Amino acid sequence: MAVKTLNVNEDILGANDMLAENLRGRFEASKVFVMNLMSSPGAGKTSVILKIIEALSGKHKIGVIEGDIASDVDARKIQKTNVDVVQINTRGACHLDANMILSATDSLGLEGKQLLIIENVGNLVCPANYDLGEALKVVVASPTEGDDKPLKYPEMFRNAAVLIVNKIDLLPYLDCDIEALKYNARQINPKLIIFETSCTTKAGIAEWCNWIIKQLPTVE
Amino acid sequence: MAVKTLNVNEDILGANDMLAENLRGRFEASKVFVMNLMSSPGAGKTSVILKIIEALSGKHKIGVIEGDIASDVDARKIQKTNVDVVQINTRGACHLDANMILSATDSLGLEGKQLLIIENVGNLVCPANYDLGEALKVVVASPTEGDDKPLKYPEMFRNAAVLIVNKIDLLPYLDCDIEALKYNARQINPKLIIFETSCTTKAGIAEWCNWIIKQLPTVE
Repeated sequence: MAVKTLNVNEDILGANDMLAENLRGRFEASKVFVMNLMSSPGAGKTSVILKIIEALSGKHKIGVIEGDIASDVDARKIQKTNVDVVQINTRGACHLDANMILSATDSLGLEGKQLLIIENVGNLVCPANYDLGEALKVVVASPTEGDDKPLKYPEMFRNAAVLIVNKIDLLPYLDCDIEALKYNARQINPKLIIFETSCTTKAGIAEWCNWIIKQLPTVE
Repeated sequence: MAVKTLNVNEDILGANDMLAENLRGRFEASKVFVMNLMSSPGAGKTSVILKIIEALSGKHKIGVIEGDIASDVDARKIQKTNVDVVQINTRGACHLDANMILSATDSLGLEGKQLLIIENVGNLVCPANYDLGEALKVVVASPTEGDDKPLKYPEMFRNAAVLIVNKIDLLPYLDCDIEALKYNARQINPKLIIFETSCTTKAGIAEWCNWIIKQLPTVE
């Protein structure tokens, strides 16, 4: 009998991709627009989500899935807005996968929702490789991290469709050239749609939220 | 024949731990103190290393191993100081492992060096689980990331012996309670030795560098 070589990473990613396609079909059939927010720890994903909720939740029904290794700090922040939220604790895993999203959406319920926001584990590496069936991958970058991150973490910037440069209110205090950051990101991914935001001053939030509204499926 | 269940993660970590012990023996025999710096992307690991070089390289021979998924941005910064540096590109892997350190130290050479600084891939998750044979694990946290990170990434703060709270010059502009950050970190790991630094104002750098000097093996 021939020896079979098992390429574990490929097999795990292959199985994840299949389930993610299944989820994508469910999301499309349910007319829910799903976005997957990824970033380093502390780039401001939760704050960006809170701003989206503030702008959209009056007219659009939103659900949120919070991914963290441990704790429910973020889910409790979302809960205060009265938007449906489910916390996933990965217990050590460095990314969300499609199977976790399947369980979370079962628990959350998709009916009537137009927008499902997934906050991934804070990690600029591993989440880039795990399809969650989302319609949109968003990478949030903070200029506090410097302007060279797209060069060091190319996969994340290559796979995302939208880049949010958040915390722009801090630019005067930082050694970060935002034009260099955007240039480096576009060198990796020329098609990136870029928004510059501050959740503190609300700069750029309206533009970003209006763009999201245009992506939402129309409901008859 | 009984079916053998392969627990891939355990086996990979087990093999890494064995090689890391071998490295630890080499480092001790060579009288080189090895520290592994870990953090989120952009918390300031490279800047902290540059400050250590500035303070110590006159009297102590230093080597640096730079870990990144892609690019040699950081190694080029170190090279300007005339300290020996090797760049590891992990080509997608989210952490350094003992095997990479073995190759890098072969290339770098340990002879005559008293301090070897390893800058891990910017990631607050996966590097925590990979022993590199180091004598000291250091986690660098930036208050720009908020004060809740120890609760969300407990493994990193549990495994580190030293926490550097860097970029403290930015505190006036941030919604981050540094006392809460330190409290949360000590809830996870009561033995953590904590330094507060700013590579911009040089606050706390002398204290941290003097502490490092005390850890260095004495050379006859």
